[in-house]
Amino acid sequence: MKLCRFNDDRLGVVLGDELADVTSVLDELPAVRYPLPRHDPLIAHLATLRPRLEAAVANAPRVPLAGVRLLSPVANPGKLVAAPVNYVKHLQEVLGDANLHHNNQISEIQRAGLFLKATSSLVGASEGVPIIHPDRRTDHEVELAVVIGRTAKNVAAADALSYVAGYTIGLDITIRGPEERSMRKSPDGYSVLGPWLVTADELADTGALALELSVNGQSRQRSNTAELIIDVAGLIEFATRFYTLHPGDVIYTGTPEGVGPVKPGDTIVARIEGIGELRVAAR
Amino acid sequence: MKLCRFNDDRLGVVLGDELADVTSVLDELPAVRYPLPRHDPLIAHLATLRPRLEAAVANAPRVPLAGVRLLSPVANPGKLVAAPVNYVKHLQEVLGDANLHHNNQISEIQRAGLFLKATSSLVGASEGVPIIHPDRRTDHEVELAVVIGRTAKNVAAADALSYVAGYTIGLDITIRGPEERSMRKSPDGYSVLGPWLVTADELADTGALALELSVNGQSRQRSNTAELIIDVAGLIEFATRFYTLHPGDVIYTGTPEGVGPVKPGDTIVARIEGIGELRVAAR
Repeated sequence: MKLCRFNDDRLGVVLGDELADVTSVLDELPAVRYPLPRHDPLIAHLATLRPRLEAAVANAPRVPLAGVRLLSPVANPGKLVAAPVNYVKHLQEVLGDANLHHNNQISEIQRAGLFLKATSSLVGASEGVPIIHPDRRTDHEVELAVVIGRTAKNVAAADALSYVAGYTIGLDITIRGPEERSMRKSPDGYSVLGPWLVTADELADTGALALELSVNGQSRQRSNTAELIIDVAGLIEFATRFYTLHPGDVIYTGTPEGVGPVKPGDTIVARIEGIGELRVAAR
Repeated sequence: MKLCRFNDDRLGVVLGDELADVTSVLDELPAVRYPLPRHDPLIAHLATLRPRLEAAVANAPRVPLAGVRLLSPVANPGKLVAAPVNYVKHLQEVLGDANLHHNNQISEIQRAGLFLKATSSLVGASEGVPIIHPDRRTDHEVELAVVIGRTAKNVAAADALSYVAGYTIGLDITIRGPEERSMRKSPDGYSVLGPWLVTADELADTGALALELSVNGQSRQRSNTAELIIDVAGLIEFATRFYTLHPGDVIYTGTPEGVGPVKPGDTIVARIEGIGELRVAAR
């Protein structure tokens, strides 16, 4: 099932070039009071809601996808975890270019660990990326993004995929420079997710998915998740040795070679096999 | 006003060695549905609720502080922002000790920028810190913590303090090693806040507050916020040039010299002038 959030926080099931508006199913989610849960309520209840969503599709109003405003398919992630330098050729390109490494120490992922992106930086495809420091180089990074479905702590790689709710395309927009990754990659709008969530049952094997990114029609990044240094299951094991992952937490799995600058007015198009196409404007 | 959260998500106003249980005022906060707000609802409404809180104190049940379980005074921060090496003598101690720098590049804060701690790592004084990797050195870091009261973006230092809801004591528990700060400092329980929130009107000047930390009665850290390289207002300016701060976001302002290891069974006591004493068990 492909689930999207659209317009004013509506929920849709994507069917080809249209969607079924199943927003009414959200009424099943409980109202909550302070203190709020620290996870995403829709993702946490997704397994239970699944039969309701499937039943609702039949009689749901159809809306052409072309006309809707796509939001992040995850509304309330507790954290955005991200993998640095998780493709060998990207590690080589960073080490070889002072505009990328900026005299920072660049380590392989097993040493560097994972980093965090601010949840306040999260947007969907139609919200666009406002470039806040146009005087500094700001790069696109396309990534397979993993959405965690249930609480995960000290999970072995062999069991890890059972904790996944689904997958989506992530853009990890990055200001180059000396600061901590968790700052340079966290301005408002610098974490894009979309166009929708593909539930894990529809994408059983993420081991060899083609992914690519173009800017204004020009191809920039082209690789395959088979080239990941640490794969999806390994990243979940790595992360959960340090902290608990909660429903709705997102792991950006890292970007392949070909990163490059974006500027206001650019159109970024990212595609991942089995998920779809994410189209985002920089402004 | 000193506000605490205690026991099963109750709200108290601290009065000497007891508290007034003003939990009933929380009924004023609206019930919300998915998608949830991405900020702390109590902090966002604090200014409006203030007269209600003051009125409630008179007839509120009194509870001895000694018997309550103290939770984090902020329940739903959108992000925990933290300053690395923001005291000169701490920078010197890190540069001089391979057990601290671990062959990582250590930069002054203006170059290093701010980092993020996972909100899933947040606990209050009575919850304790579970040491997850006892084979690795794990350090205490006492810090003045700033709680943001209203949405802040591109705020000048001269205006910054008007965005502060209040202050509390922060412990930035840290695994030493090569990984990104945002990972090593984010295990569950590694971000402590408490014992309570002191509203900004009670602590108008944070420019020269004594702060200290002891472990099992032995003094470890002793300094003064006058020694901060970038002060509270400067940190807000620095952060909001990169991202929006929302109500309930927390800034850990950095730790002074004297960091050292903690192990299960240790009792950590941190004090900051004008706030109080935070007592936390490592386990």
